[in-house]
Amino acid sequence: MLKAFCARRRLGLAPFFVFGDPALLARTAEALGLGASVETASAETACDVFARALPVVPLSSGAPAAATIESIERAVEAAAHGRARAVVTNPISKATLYDAGFKHPGHTEFLGALAKRHYDRDATPVMMLWSQELAVVPITIHVALARVPQLLTKELVVATARIVARDLQTRFGLAAPRLAIAGLNPHAGEAGAMGREEIDVIAPAIAELRGTGVDARGPFPADTLFHAAARRTYDVALCPTHDQALIPIKTLAFERAVNVTLGLPFFRASPDHGVAYDIAGKGVADPSSLIEAIRLADRITA
Amino acid sequence: MLKAFCARRRLGLAPFFVFGDPALLARTAEALGLGASVETASAETACDVFARALPVVPLSSGAPAAATIESIERAVEAAAHGRARAVVTNPISKATLYDAGFKHPGHTEFLGALAKRHYDRDATPVMMLWSQELAVVPITIHVALARVPQLLTKELVVATARIVARDLQTRFGLAAPRLAIAGLNPHAGEAGAMGREEIDVIAPAIAELRGTGVDARGPFPADTLFHAAARRTYDVALCPTHDQALIPIKTLAFERAVNVTLGLPFFRASPDHGVAYDIAGKGVADPSSLIEAIRLADRITA
Repeated sequence: MLKAFCARRRLGLAPFFVFGDPALLARTAEALGLGASVETASAETACDVFARALPVVPLSSGAPAAATIESIERAVEAAAHGRARAVVTNPISKATLYDAGFKHPGHTEFLGALAKRHYDRDATPVMMLWSQELAVVPITIHVALARVPQLLTKELVVATARIVARDLQTRFGLAAPRLAIAGLNPHAGEAGAMGREEIDVIAPAIAELRGTGVDARGPFPADTLFHAAARRTYDVALCPTHDQALIPIKTLAFERAVNVTLGLPFFRASPDHGVAYDIAGKGVADPSSLIEAIRLADRITA
Repeated sequence: MLKAFCARRRLGLAPFFVFGDPALLARTAEALGLGASVETASAETACDVFARALPVVPLSSGAPAAATIESIERAVEAAAHGRARAVVTNPISKATLYDAGFKHPGHTEFLGALAKRHYDRDATPVMMLWSQELAVVPITIHVALARVPQLLTKELVVATARIVARDLQTRFGLAAPRLAIAGLNPHAGEAGAMGREEIDVIAPAIAELRGTGVDARGPFPADTLFHAAARRTYDVALCPTHDQALIPIKTLAFERAVNVTLGLPFFRASPDHGVAYDIAGKGVADPSSLIEAIRLADRITA
């Protein structure tokens, strides 16, 4: 956050403010010699403060897990009340949250619950990894690979693709987003010779999507879907497994990919890397992904 | 082949000869205006011919499938008798071969049988995809994804890694090849939270390999294994599934990856793309991968 703030003029970053501990951030800026001022602010005053200092809105919680949860809650609340255009979250440590009694399977599900609380709307959060080079959506995410064939239903493919298509239209401004859908099996099953999920699940899902006006194509063999010429033929690739989606984007844009949650009533982005507590606050972390997340949030909600 | 021949001086390619139909290749060269001479040769005279013309050793079979099979058999025979340093094969159409009664599951298994015939040695062929940027080995290959968890045994991981380590030493000249082994599940299972194959199968295989002097490491999350900094830490990545291995290399080196068969008593390489009968002989095919295969075969057997 501090490094992104220091780079704000050079990179033309839109104003942002932090929910956190102003004293801690000030000490960190001092210790790292970043020359960044930190100023206690409210969501209302943050925009004015941003020109001269990093605006930090204090939390009432002190313990790390409680503070993390409160910062996410208050960021969503600020977005819901029109005091922020978007929510950008830093990586969180699930272990820390679980130890503190956090009951959601992950960040994304927590955001879904907050959408319900603040917007009174049921949300189906969908994770998209976005970079300049490539955008990908894993259709199944944090599950054992052996479970993917059962979990990959026509309904899941259709529901995921609909949310992706709608959000790329409404938020990313693509009039007719092109969705490429990868097969589950090698070579997309080679007409059933290596698995039937393409025939029984994915192709029927694509047919249903196309019937309702979604430009979904495939199923394509995943291995030939990500070279430069292939990438020009679609706006986002949906992949049955976690690794099919995350391998290509982390190969092409490792420190620059942004994790975007689609399907929410507000825009949320996050750097696409882990918590790295071992280097947090020590000045060695690469802020590229956070900066990309802030820029994307600005562009999408401008 | 004709384009590679035309580029031989510019690229400094080692002499090669073709098992095929001299008249057909001459007509193709003529039709495409490639200015390449084609000359009927034998394996013994090919090297002298190469300076002035593409040496083509005629086949006795005329039908396409029989000719394809004969060309592979005779190329292996030439290698076994010291008349060729390596075998480079073009992509083959399995459908054509099966229609003609071909009984092997694929090219690779056929090469294993030929190794037995000409070298009287049992061979376990292992597919490696190689490029300047990255080398990968899929531990399971052309099988439905749902079958991978059963097929991925400790024995298979150990046997595959041993062949890879040995051939990288003996053929690629790496004194102590570093093998990175990917997990099957997202995040390599996160300590069992998303699948146990890493704990039950892959980690024990790595322990056994290390116990016998193979520098095997992992299991690593597959999605963070292929960016530039990660690639510098190993010589080859072994991946449980086809797509985990082939997605990153085809993303990074689409037209340049070379398919190498390890575990054979001779060196065999092939361009890493499909048959593309629709463009074969029309002059539009990109010869990069074939040229890379010829160069690698030369380098490895020099």
